[in-house]
Amino acid sequence: VVFEPDDVVVPGQPGELLLDLAGAAGIPLLSECGGQGTCGSCRVLVQRGRVSFADQAGREEEITAPREVLACQTAAAGDLVVRIPPEARLRPLHQRITGYLGPEARVYLQEPHQGMPLARRLALELAPPSFDDPTPDWERLAMGLRHACGAERNLTANLDVLREMPRLLRELDFKVSVTVLDEGWQDRLIALGKPDGDPLLGLALDIGTTNIKAELVDLGSGRVLGGASEFNAQARYGEDVISRIIWAQEHEWGADELQDALVTSVNTVIGELLKQTQAAQEQIVAVSCAGNATMISFRLRLPADAIRRAPHVAPVGLPPTVQAGMLGLDTHPAAGVYCLPAINGYVGGDISGGILATGMFAAEDLRALVDVGTNGEIVVGNRDWRMCCACSAGPAFEGMGIECGLPARPGAIESLRYESEHDCVDVRTIGEELPVGVCGNGLAETLATLLDAQVIDRAGNLVAEFPSPRMRQADGEMQFVLLWSDQNATGRDLVLRQSEIDNLIRAKAAVFAALVTLLEELGLSTGDIGHFYLAGAFGSHLDVRTAIKIGLLPDLPAERVTVAGNTALAGAYLTLLSSEARDEIQKLARATTYMDLSTSSRFMEEYIAAQMLPHTNLERFPSLAPDNAGPEWGNSLNR
Amino acid sequence: VVFEPDDVVVPGQPGELLLDLAGAAGIPLLSECGGQGTCGSCRVLVQRGRVSFADQAGREEEITAPREVLACQTAAAGDLVVRIPPEARLRPLHQRITGYLGPEARVYLQEPHQGMPLARRLALELAPPSFDDPTPDWERLAMGLRHACGAERNLTANLDVLREMPRLLRELDFKVSVTVLDEGWQDRLIALGKPDGDPLLGLALDIGTTNIKAELVDLGSGRVLGGASEFNAQARYGEDVISRIIWAQEHEWGADELQDALVTSVNTVIGELLKQTQAAQEQIVAVSCAGNATMISFRLRLPADAIRRAPHVAPVGLPPTVQAGMLGLDTHPAAGVYCLPAINGYVGGDISGGILATGMFAAEDLRALVDVGTNGEIVVGNRDWRMCCACSAGPAFEGMGIECGLPARPGAIESLRYESEHDCVDVRTIGEELPVGVCGNGLAETLATLLDAQVIDRAGNLVAEFPSPRMRQADGEMQFVLLWSDQNATGRDLVLRQSEIDNLIRAKAAVFAALVTLLEELGLSTGDIGHFYLAGAFGSHLDVRTAIKIGLLPDLPAERVTVAGNTALAGAYLTLLSSEARDEIQKLARATTYMDLSTSSRFMEEYIAAQMLPHTNLERFPSLAPDNAGPEWGNSLNR
Repeated sequence: VVFEPDDVVVPGQPGELLLDLAGAAGIPLLSECGGQGTCGSCRVLVQRGRVSFADQAGREEEITAPREVLACQTAAAGDLVVRIPPEARLRPLHQRITGYLGPEARVYLQEPHQGMPLARRLALELAPPSFDDPTPDWERLAMGLRHACGAERNLTANLDVLREMPRLLRELDFKVSVTVLDEGWQDRLIALGKPDGDPLLGLALDIGTTNIKAELVDLGSGRVLGGASEFNAQARYGEDVISRIIWAQEHEWGADELQDALVTSVNTVIGELLKQTQAAQEQIVAVSCAGNATMISFRLRLPADAIRRAPHVAPVGLPPTVQAGMLGLDTHPAAGVYCLPAINGYVGGDISGGILATGMFAAEDLRALVDVGTNGEIVVGNRDWRMCCACSAGPAFEGMGIECGLPARPGAIESLRYESEHDCVDVRTIGEELPVGVCGNGLAETLATLLDAQVIDRAGNLVAEFPSPRMRQADGEMQFVLLWSDQNATGRDLVLRQSEIDNLIRAKAAVFAALVTLLEELGLSTGDIGHFYLAGAFGSHLDVRTAIKIGLLPDLPAERVTVAGNTALAGAYLTLLSSEARDEIQKLARATTYMDLSTSSRFMEEYIAAQMLPHTNLERFPSLAPDNAGPEWGNSLNR
Repeated sequence: VVFEPDDVVVPGQPGELLLDLAGAAGIPLLSECGGQGTCGSCRVLVQRGRVSFADQAGREEEITAPREVLACQTAAAGDLVVRIPPEARLRPLHQRITGYLGPEARVYLQEPHQGMPLARRLALELAPPSFDDPTPDWERLAMGLRHACGAERNLTANLDVLREMPRLLRELDFKVSVTVLDEGWQDRLIALGKPDGDPLLGLALDIGTTNIKAELVDLGSGRVLGGASEFNAQARYGEDVISRIIWAQEHEWGADELQDALVTSVNTVIGELLKQTQAAQEQIVAVSCAGNATMISFRLRLPADAIRRAPHVAPVGLPPTVQAGMLGLDTHPAAGVYCLPAINGYVGGDISGGILATGMFAAEDLRALVDVGTNGEIVVGNRDWRMCCACSAGPAFEGMGIECGLPARPGAIESLRYESEHDCVDVRTIGEELPVGVCGNGLAETLATLLDAQVIDRAGNLVAEFPSPRMRQADGEMQFVLLWSDQNATGRDLVLRQSEIDNLIRAKAAVFAALVTLLEELGLSTGDIGHFYLAGAFGSHLDVRTAIKIGLLPDLPAERVTVAGNTALAGAYLTLLSSEARDEIQKLARATTYMDLSTSSRFMEEYIAAQMLPHTNLERFPSLAPDNAGPEWGNSLNR
């Protein structure tokens, strides 16, 4: 039986009720009357397939056109496709925040290329000890485990588990489930329990400089159960990694305080996920963690000083798997924390995750990955070689330093259109909730729509004489009202200020300049690139034309661009589920070369030239009609 | 230059003073005048070889007969053999307490069969990072380490070390020494420092039910630097393992209290060793720990309940290597604690250590190992198969429950002769100090000499009418004064009581009965055994005839018996120094089968028959003259 739109398949026996099958698929349904067939709350849509009706003495019927049925009164009698409407769900359908997974990457979600998830559970039935076989408990368990794995894996265990082992084995009559962590060349036994426990969960985590995003994943099925994001509380110690490294160095307990701030934020996200999914903390037994090298260093309280000095060396590329309890995470205390390998101090596991998730690592043609975060990172290459660079973009597109900005979460505006004729703003928010602010996507669209409407000129200046009450002067600068106080949930007008627009333009200019510089240093041009991936602060809903219009991307045919969303999180998701993906990412990180732009004069020239919308040199954007140029760009360039 | 009797070889340059060479060999000499050649405190004996005399303008001379020289005025001019007398030593010559090492075992102390010690240090000269090579610090270190090892070993590290790494690498200009622990299929980086640090030390530890013994070993040279032993403070919770397991179960924090007691005792021994050797706690980076399964369980705070119930299963055979800091040991906090593998709940790592150390695991002929501790264990077999059993002997031969008893340590009487003609007792003590008590060796000799002198009869009864003031009644039983109060350091008479003699006889009877029962169950007799090893509470000074005379050993030709001393500690020493020995011991432990005697009626019969000196059935001891039978054994049998 296939359940849509979750796209989950469960095997069923003829006669099993759809209500139970949906539960088995991890999609519990409302059932207010307790399965009596009276309340109608479990109404679902059978798309096609053969069913039998319990309330009609098991009468079977082949369904060819979609039909509404009660899940508590309808059983499968053959292959079925069933759509579950939002109103029948016990838990809301989660908004998937993981980024794009290319076809080369998706193989890791299927056998034979999946291998092992970071943590897995195996049920063992061991022979009890006897005088003929007095093998010690641990060796007995290890033998059973090797037998169940079908492979001669090295095995170790935490002392805590060994201390519980003799009692548990005997209480459970030597029929137990073991939870083991894949640490590469060894498995670690981290928990022991009844054969039928709650599902094992894993956390795919992206620790960004500004935002922390996570998804909770069923390690058995790979299904994403929930997603959440939160500002990184470290922001109060500095906007970017450099200022935080300096802060940590200059304060006696600086590194501890920064780590604590990070733990608090990550635990907030975990708490939100547990609430969303009604799961228990102890179910989370694995964490796969993407992030730049500074964030990972702060995470593990490794000194990050060397990162900020040339040649920007990370303390650790691929850290050993660490026990979550040692890092203060609100998970199972023995959960394994795996970190995606960094390429360099400035190009971290978020980028190796992106190279993995987009499938760039396996591409024959030339590809480019542009990841816009508080730092911008660019990778160019294919399966044989890859070059990367980094630039400081600032956190504007992540919603930091923009009063109305916020990370992508329910209530965040991800799409915004301004229609000057009726002076009207049309928005779409995540979760279709009342607007509370604007996330990266929405900020990019806001720039584009305000440029289209000539509310701002090509230099990004708010045009003071624009005929709308939304345009006003306040606090010594111009601002434009996006939503009036009665149209949003904050109780105040949502505005975009001149200084905020300047931040957004500087961010896109840095990323564009880095991309162009890297390509030119390699003797390449944008035309050589078979496919572009735009990743980072933007969700996958960002329109490619919008990104080109504001000069975030070069002027390319839309079919050569994928707005890939959070590919770091997608990489964390893959490495959470697949040992082969973990092997691959380590290889690809080693085979990716860093190029330093900090001393490149070409980069500075490109950066200055990119400070307009879309660019100073319009010849680089031939597809944009000249009438987009706006009335007074010549002047404002010198502002 | 060879230094005797330590048997240490150091390479020397012509002209290097013997004073300095001895220091380099780890044998610092007294030098009261500071090397001026005036005080004579550094006088040593050159046995043979070529020397030059600094105080005679470098005149060279070939020495052929032993000659006394001043080490501060004499230099090597060729190969030399030098004997260092005790009075020239800055530190006393350590009394070696490790047991016998058979030739098959000694190969593990030499290449190519040594492999790696449990911890080793490697000096690395790494290229500093550059823009061309921005490899992260950890990966740079790992590459350097793999290069230095010449092998592709899996490598992990403690977070603590990773946290210090970036600073240390830069402070030391990327020229560092790394200390790595061999954990079987992976190395663990546990410390990072200057290339020239203090020598790495390891602790060979035997945790017995009654006594804890340890030696401090230079992991580079394998030299034993010191030895010490101490009562196990757990004794106050019960004399044997069973009573302690019950105590631990019956008290809420029982397991913790027992572990604490053990930690205290082990740390006392470590403290004594550090005092002896002037070494620092941080130098001890590896611990190899032998002990029965209950002691190892208490050590790691694993529940030992299943050990006391049939079929006597140990919680863990070979525990994963544990960090010493987690166990509260006074060593380097990251020191690795390796435990020798147990065969069964009642036959522990002390016995697998004995099988390794004696070389029994590689023997073509049939051999037997008898280890007398608070439990007695017997192993019979060869390189292809081995059977073992265990019996409860009680701690009498370990000095526990005997008022004058104590473990083998300075002041303990290890040899005792009673001459009835002059009513005189002649003793030899360890370290030739004033007697403070009698250790296992001495107790066995006391039984034998009192039997010879007819102070006791064959049933072990003190003969009340024996004509000596030493024979007296006190506290409701007979006692015999071994040393008068003015002949020993305690200020009181050292006596042996009737009840104490009974304990000693029960102990030897249990061991003898177990040996005979095991052999008979296998269809073997003592005559089939090519070689016997008597190990355990007795030092290697115990006379074989004495052991036979009291019926501890069967009546065998002396050349077929080795009194092997503490073979558990010898096994710990080997596994501390050799990864190949660690591999071997794991194999041999798996290939040794346990036989349970607890329900054997044959064992009970043999036990009762062995309650005389040497045995009820004198036909079993044909070599003992019949006049040893004593005057009244017929009566006392029924006592």
